[in-house]
Amino acid sequence: MEIYLDHASTTPIHPLVMNSINQSYKMYYANPSSVHEAGYQALNRIEEARKNLLKLLDGSGYDLIFTSGATEANNTIINGSYVQAARKHDSWLCSAIEHPSVLKPYELIKSKGAQVRFLSCDSSGLIRLDDLEGAITPETKLISLMHVNNETGVIQPIEHAVTMIRNLNPKTRIHVDGVQAFGKIDSSLKKMDPDYYSISAHKIGGPRGMGALIYRKSKKPMPLLWGGGQEKNLRSGTENTPGIVGFETAAILRHQSLQQNTSLLWAVRHQMIRQLHDQVGGIKLIEADTEAEQVPGILLISVDGTRSEVILRMLSDDHIYVSAGSACSSRKTAASHVLKAMSLDEQTIQGALRISFDETLTARQIDRFTQKLANHTHQMRKMIKR
Amino acid sequence: MEIYLDHASTTPIHPLVMNSINQSYKMYYANPSSVHEAGYQALNRIEEARKNLLKLLDGSGYDLIFTSGATEANNTIINGSYVQAARKHDSWLCSAIEHPSVLKPYELIKSKGAQVRFLSCDSSGLIRLDDLEGAITPETKLISLMHVNNETGVIQPIEHAVTMIRNLNPKTRIHVDGVQAFGKIDSSLKKMDPDYYSISAHKIGGPRGMGALIYRKSKKPMPLLWGGGQEKNLRSGTENTPGIVGFETAAILRHQSLQQNTSLLWAVRHQMIRQLHDQVGGIKLIEADTEAEQVPGILLISVDGTRSEVILRMLSDDHIYVSAGSACSSRKTAASHVLKAMSLDEQTIQGALRISFDETLTARQIDRFTQKLANHTHQMRKMIKR
Repeated sequence: MEIYLDHASTTPIHPLVMNSINQSYKMYYANPSSVHEAGYQALNRIEEARKNLLKLLDGSGYDLIFTSGATEANNTIINGSYVQAARKHDSWLCSAIEHPSVLKPYELIKSKGAQVRFLSCDSSGLIRLDDLEGAITPETKLISLMHVNNETGVIQPIEHAVTMIRNLNPKTRIHVDGVQAFGKIDSSLKKMDPDYYSISAHKIGGPRGMGALIYRKSKKPMPLLWGGGQEKNLRSGTENTPGIVGFETAAILRHQSLQQNTSLLWAVRHQMIRQLHDQVGGIKLIEADTEAEQVPGILLISVDGTRSEVILRMLSDDHIYVSAGSACSSRKTAASHVLKAMSLDEQTIQGALRISFDETLTARQIDRFTQKLANHTHQMRKMIKR
Repeated sequence: MEIYLDHASTTPIHPLVMNSINQSYKMYYANPSSVHEAGYQALNRIEEARKNLLKLLDGSGYDLIFTSGATEANNTIINGSYVQAARKHDSWLCSAIEHPSVLKPYELIKSKGAQVRFLSCDSSGLIRLDDLEGAITPETKLISLMHVNNETGVIQPIEHAVTMIRNLNPKTRIHVDGVQAFGKIDSSLKKMDPDYYSISAHKIGGPRGMGALIYRKSKKPMPLLWGGGQEKNLRSGTENTPGIVGFETAAILRHQSLQQNTSLLWAVRHQMIRQLHDQVGGIKLIEADTEAEQVPGILLISVDGTRSEVILRMLSDDHIYVSAGSACSSRKTAASHVLKAMSLDEQTIQGALRISFDETLTARQIDRFTQKLANHTHQMRKMIKR
């Protein structure tokens, strides 16, 4: 039996989401842009999903457009802000621990001549608010900060950061990548007060190829995809009605059980950590200082005297699936940019494993995983000692 | 019972495609970028689908990346070519009858200062090769031509156009929007020889939110979406494995029955035309001069003495769904840019209805449609006479 411990990369679809999708393909088969009754039915269903998602996000004053995923949402904001920039001395800020779908668009506009600064983080994976404070200038056009880091599960101090940015430069637009937060912790836009927020369906048991960009109504994004004028003229392309309905279903299911699942996930995490210490030993936890700053479902550890890419393959042979870093860049051999930004030593980075799970993980599966990891670790440590 | 005559807008999903998607969500649930076994299985399945689609396109010498749809594929090519343009006097060409997902990106780069010329078409909806011949210059960087027009169903002379362009300027890159052609007529890249070809899944019984951009291996496109480096570093974003497999299934099914369906569609078209003349009268066919230049599944007519938006709504009340123009822009009241480019008179455009169907349309459904259309038309004509 497979043990899937890579939920931060992608999640298996929820059976009820699959049902929604199947049903939508039957009920809302028409093109939502068509003027006949079947088209209107599809369009109305999309508007209903849009409202429901905005409600889950506590998003009055905001609007939402559906995209092909968070990569598209992030690219839309960063590219659009650069294209619209009027002045040569405009500048951009981005934390060094962002996801590649945020980092790369910034690197791209930097290569075109934009002034981009990447903000540091501390050794626990939190962005440095003092660094941020010093970086905001009257020229700062856009800043991107992630809500929860995908490699560490550390929750960033978005509320504090937003208040600080607004005080320093009320014109700076604030973009928050909420992919690893939405459906996992409170994602109230009212509380956080960003201008843009990106989310993804496949990280919460929803369909692939589906995301959304939420924007403050007074700060409309500039489109990245041009054409038929769908999604309020901000994102062209025939609407993916079944994907949208599936996303809505996944989000509602997640939010219904959010509190209960969070307690379960903390229990799973604590149990796993106990067993890792007891059975494997030489385990370094890479996590936030307090539980309030950590999502429980992402557990980043470093296993002393091992190399994560080897352990990962050994576990894979046992049908146990973990990750050695961000899944999105995991086919690359370079060390994780997040762990480097945290100034972790070479050895800690080499042995880093990301274990990400949901609330259905059983005690038996934890046992099997920690036992297998213990075996492989002992074997590897013995080989290295020779 | 509903009669769906709007297949050029979108098609209902094929039940076997739905099965493929459901199965893929179970079998290939992992992130294809993950380095463990479950990730590799998903990645391999994607590579298999890529090969199968390229085979259907007769695409040796070409490669293919999956996108969120044809809108994204078209935007990628046009935007990328503009971003990469080195010289101020570079110029762009595009036929006036392209889909909005081609026209709008050209309008956008034109607004940024690019030299864009829109090529005319004749009254039968064919691009004018003589106009094209005069327009190609040593500065022409990219030209976009569609394979089959979505409003008229007219097949454009791509082979002739490509040969002509290559003779006049071998460096001009040629982009063909194949959305309404793929799975409906022969789409051999070997025969047509374009540099780029875009296709969409939802026009052939496949899933929503899924398309592909095919490119000549020696002429890699510039990415529009940046991030994790998926799809050969040309299109970032977690791969939509089930969508890709669903697209493959739809394409294979279409190609297996392509010849047989084409014969059926011609029979349906001829029957429908006969009944329209007999029962409705005052019908003007807007179609190509020869069957070789026309796809049978799109029938564009103009009904004398009517206004299409009224007829469309009356038919909608009978649960019969047709279109008054391109679905992608059909919520707009402006007259179709395609019909205007064909220089049709005001009255013909006002009464224009697009009837698009697949091979499952029954004689009974044709009867009901033509009878209802006859009733509404007679009623409307009487009212106008008063």
